[in-house]
Amino acid sequence: MAADFRANCSVQATLQLVGDRWSMLVLRESFHGVKRFDALQRNLGIARNILASRLQMLVAAGILERKRYQERPERFEYRLTRKGADLWPALIALMEWGDRYLADDGGPLELIHKGCGHTIVPQMTCPDCGEPLTAYDVIAQPREDVERAA
Amino acid sequence: MAADFRANCSVQATLQLVGDRWSMLVLRESFHGVKRFDALQRNLGIARNILASRLQMLVAAGILERKRYQERPERFEYRLTRKGADLWPALIALMEWGDRYLADDGGPLELIHKGCGHTIVPQMTCPDCGEPLTAYDVIAQPREDVERAA
Repeated sequence: MAADFRANCSVQATLQLVGDRWSMLVLRESFHGVKRFDALQRNLGIARNILASRLQMLVAAGILERKRYQERPERFEYRLTRKGADLWPALIALMEWGDRYLADDGGPLELIHKGCGHTIVPQMTCPDCGEPLTAYDVIAQPREDVERAA
Repeated sequence: MAADFRANCSVQATLQLVGDRWSMLVLRESFHGVKRFDALQRNLGIARNILASRLQMLVAAGILERKRYQERPERFEYRLTRKGADLWPALIALMEWGDRYLADDGGPLELIHKGCGHTIVPQMTCPDCGEPLTAYDVIAQPREDVERAA
């Protein structure tokens, strides 16, 4: 399976898009509801030109959308699209690992599930049988050609 | 919650450790069972000195461990530790997003859950109630001080 899965690796493709530190931190702010340039710039302590280029890239990639929220003077905000919101599991997985292994005190944030009200550590599970998954519970294999064509 | 969660952000801490493209791709190989320098080098098409520095960093971080597998001449391999294996949800989440949004055909790999035998797309769920989670189902809030001290 060597050539194909490496040449088309989806981990690599995703990281090429959002793997640099600033892009991922802009997304962190987006998930916290921060939408405006000045607030992003202040929260991240990022140079304005770097922030502008990251926002432009994230908009071009369809991860954020740029919407006008004020006419005079014209002002825009940056909102997560569905595609962007779907990066949430990746961000959460990176956060939980850091909370567990790099933070002294469990990390600065806790997550509350609105549905049941509990403080949770989200887990990866099998959508069919509901069992929690680790690296050792899953086999990765080349996708069948018949499925790829479907 | 601004200062504390940003200053100690676990997403940022994790990305500082494994966020560069080569480190994450070395980990991808590790999850595929590739342990030896030459095989890593060949699979990744990476310069030997860059690979050596990434392996050294991942070992220093406790994500890989270096084990001798041959005495004469001395040869070492690099195996995932528990800490390293626990990065699996983050890699899978990045892969699934790339499969969904960047690949033409669902991506080159499919995942089989050994437990139930099904081809799956792992999902993030609430460990308490078992419901699937998206960005909109969860609130992030500062961890209570009493919990942090516990």
